[in-house]
Amino acid sequence: MEFDTSRRLAAEALGTLLLVCTVVGSGIMADRLTDDVALALLGNTLPTGAILVVLITILGPVSGAHFNPAVTVAFLMRGEIVPGTALAYVAAQIAGGILGAVIAHAMFELPLIQSSLTTRTGTAQWFAELVAAFGLVFTIFAGIRFRSDAVPWLVGLYITAAYWFTASTSFANPAVAIARAFTDTFSGIRPIDVPGFIAAELVGAALAALVAGWMFGQACAKSRPEAAE
Amino acid sequence: MEFDTSRRLAAEALGTLLLVCTVVGSGIMADRLTDDVALALLGNTLPTGAILVVLITILGPVSGAHFNPAVTVAFLMRGEIVPGTALAYVAAQIAGGILGAVIAHAMFELPLIQSSLTTRTGTAQWFAELVAAFGLVFTIFAGIRFRSDAVPWLVGLYITAAYWFTASTSFANPAVAIARAFTDTFSGIRPIDVPGFIAAELVGAALAALVAGWMFGQACAKSRPEAAE
Amino acid sequence: MEFDTSRRLAAEALGTLLLVCTVVGSGIMADRLTDDVALALLGNTLPTGAILVVLITILGPVSGAHFNPAVTVAFLMRGEIVPGTALAYVAAQIAGGILGAVIAHAMFELPLIQSSLTTRTGTAQWFAELVAAFGLVFTIFAGIRFRSDAVPWLVGLYITAAYWFTASTSFANPAVAIARAFTDTFSGIRPIDVPGFIAAELVGAALAALVAGWMFGQACAKSRPEAAE
Amino acid sequence: MEFDTSRRLAAEALGTLLLVCTVVGSGIMADRLTDDVALALLGNTLPTGAILVVLITILGPVSGAHFNPAVTVAFLMRGEIVPGTALAYVAAQIAGGILGAVIAHAMFELPLIQSSLTTRTGTAQWFAELVAAFGLVFTIFAGIRFRSDAVPWLVGLYITAAYWFTASTSFANPAVAIARAFTDTFSGIRPIDVPGFIAAELVGAALAALVAGWMFGQACAKSRPEAAE
Repeated sequence: MEFDTSRRLAAEALGTLLLVCTVVGSGIMADRLTDDVALALLGNTLPTGAILVVLITILGPVSGAHFNPAVTVAFLMRGEIVPGTALAYVAAQIAGGILGAVIAHAMFELPLIQSSLTTRTGTAQWFAELVAAFGLVFTIFAGIRFRSDAVPWLVGLYITAAYWFTASTSFANPAVAIARAFTDTFSGIRPIDVPGFIAAELVGAALAALVAGWMFGQACAKSRPEAAE
Repeated sequence: MEFDTSRRLAAEALGTLLLVCTVVGSGIMADRLTDDVALALLGNTLPTGAILVVLITILGPVSGAHFNPAVTVAFLMRGEIVPGTALAYVAAQIAGGILGAVIAHAMFELPLIQSSLTTRTGTAQWFAELVAAFGLVFTIFAGIRFRSDAVPWLVGLYITAAYWFTASTSFANPAVAIARAFTDTFSGIRPIDVPGFIAAELVGAALAALVAGWMFGQACAKSRPEAAE
Repeated sequence: MEFDTSRRLAAEALGTLLLVCTVVGSGIMADRLTDDVALALLGNTLPTGAILVVLITILGPVSGAHFNPAVTVAFLMRGEIVPGTALAYVAAQIAGGILGAVIAHAMFELPLIQSSLTTRTGTAQWFAELVAAFGLVFTIFAGIRFRSDAVPWLVGLYITAAYWFTASTSFANPAVAIARAFTDTFSGIRPIDVPGFIAAELVGAALAALVAGWMFGQACAKSRPEAAE
Repeated sequence: MEFDTSRRLAAEALGTLLLVCTVVGSGIMADRLTDDVALALLGNTLPTGAILVVLITILGPVSGAHFNPAVTVAFLMRGEIVPGTALAYVAAQIAGGILGAVIAHAMFELPLIQSSLTTRTGTAQWFAELVAAFGLVFTIFAGIRFRSDAVPWLVGLYITAAYWFTASTSFANPAVAIARAFTDTFSGIRPIDVPGFIAAELVGAALAALVAGWMFGQACAKSRPEAAE
């Protein structure tokens, strides 16, 4: 089953849109309803993990369900996507992500475009993002290698864990990081702090591609999971 | 495997009954036990997501497990259900839903029939319901297309997310919206606000049918998932 | 694959032991750690739902994983278990359940045998137990009929929901109800209130057997799910 | 599919590293964000359960995904791993676990190496660890016997339950216990208390091997689950 480029880009944009809409929207909802920050993070975590399982399952067969430039770059490193398509994927992800933040704001009657004031910077935060992206990309490559039908669950569960075990709450996604700069709510990040996050994420993703390449050997499957039809 | 009309309608009524009973009952329970509204929403979310997985798995093989007029209308748009049956489905869903609210009230020793005083109206709420129903119906159609065995999980996880990322807590279901007008508890909605919600849900569902029709092409599966027997 | 009677009874006893140990133990833990009763119920719910998935998966192939006299009685009604074995099952369940409460007490340094002072009685509570047991047994029969490999998940998710949507927090199990009379902690029930609960549970289970028998017709599978080997 | 020793040991080290990183990191995060200890334990439980499903799925095909000396010893008892490899596994697990605590500290800007002051000792705690390890190893052996593809989920769900129903919050893992002695945060344990925990865990694991050996008979599968390829 092969989808044409317009459908694949639409899937990347729509998936990243709904992902960011969930991250930002559930952050706003949780933050409004409680003063306990751990409870707010829980109200942010469960929807994010749940929607990832859904989106990767339903859009994976169309576009591979990257929704994440770090993932697209890792596939590029492995020669599984051509540079032109990769660039278009990244553009679709960023555009979709920003639109997702705007839609979340519209639902919660907030200014549609905002600029975050939340500081997220420094060596420890960058290290946390590196770890987060390493784990995410390693999980994806290992999942594709051994249990491709389980990748949606593996990613959803990994992010559920990583929201809590990394000090940065695991953005692990440059497109999402850019989109989150456009919201001054629970899940925001100052625009000036985004480049540091993106650099750390790309390093983590590249490292994961190397380690997975060594550990799982030459026989690695060459493509992302398609639906088991 | 084909079930006769009486069993199919009974399945739609029983499923919607248990769904509304869970939504209303868990809302009452959560609201009684805590003053933290985020915690109450969590105590409302997890049961709703869990029971959806159960009900769609066990009644899907009988009736298709719509439990939702917006879903039935979307299948009508695709020509997968005849108008007469669709009408009977919707009637069974509404009757079952109201009975579910009554049963929840009986368990919690509340007046059996109530009228909600909770205001849920305005452009932002309607837009949230449109987004919620769009996502739900898009998830169902994509799930049927690629992983029909996973539809129960996809719907349960989608609603788990949508309770938090939409500003309206994602009713996304006209029969449930009507039933929730009959309870003046945590999950209620003023009767006067129901038509706005239903209109928004139907628009979102129709939009999802169009987008899914384009994205997944002509080869779309023609029927809802039957059990993998 | 067929297991002898001693292994089947041991599986029923061990499974009910670990189930009650989880219900009672997590109730004690949650109650000690927080003053918020909704949070305590959540800390009681998630372990119970999780352990049910585990226990039914790993012991179902040995004994059918009833762990519940109401389930055993429902299978007796359907002629799928002989009366002598059913009686032995129920005895093993009750003995295992009580031992589970004792073990939980030992872990938490509490008196090993206690008598609960928690009142749980009245028409509304009995009606809630009837609904809880109806839903549980209906879920089991429908699951066996359509997706026998999914029964562990269906039961775990159903109970996760029923802890919140029924006013009684869904005991739905006479052996567990008896065992919970032996603990004066979060999950306890006064011994004098147990017979009312058991009666309501048996009525609910019988009702579910009747409705499932009608809805799913003559072709019902005759036995509980064995592992898909 | 067979992996060489260096990859198998790397998988054991990396898996235990990420497991401890999650246990320690999520404990720090949860403890910082809330004063409610039940909520902190929930914020510690969900990531731990989730990452276990991920790690066992993606590394099980390489090394068997023990990540736990008690599990390795139980396999040694059953003659399914040779003593030399078992020793190397345990060393890799301990080294990986300690490194995981160090990485968690680095992400949260804490001293990299710490010594816990949290007392966890006494008969009740040891009994709880025995129960915890018994349940874990019994679950693994039964899972391998009947549903080897489900083992990752069974372990993740079991630990989710055991964090709450055992009084010790279920370390159930000597390598993790050692690593947790190196962190003076939410999940720490005094170094002097570690030997008691390890002894209890090994007794529980051995007991589980015996009971599982009896209950599941001679036909027991001889090896851990490989990916279903």
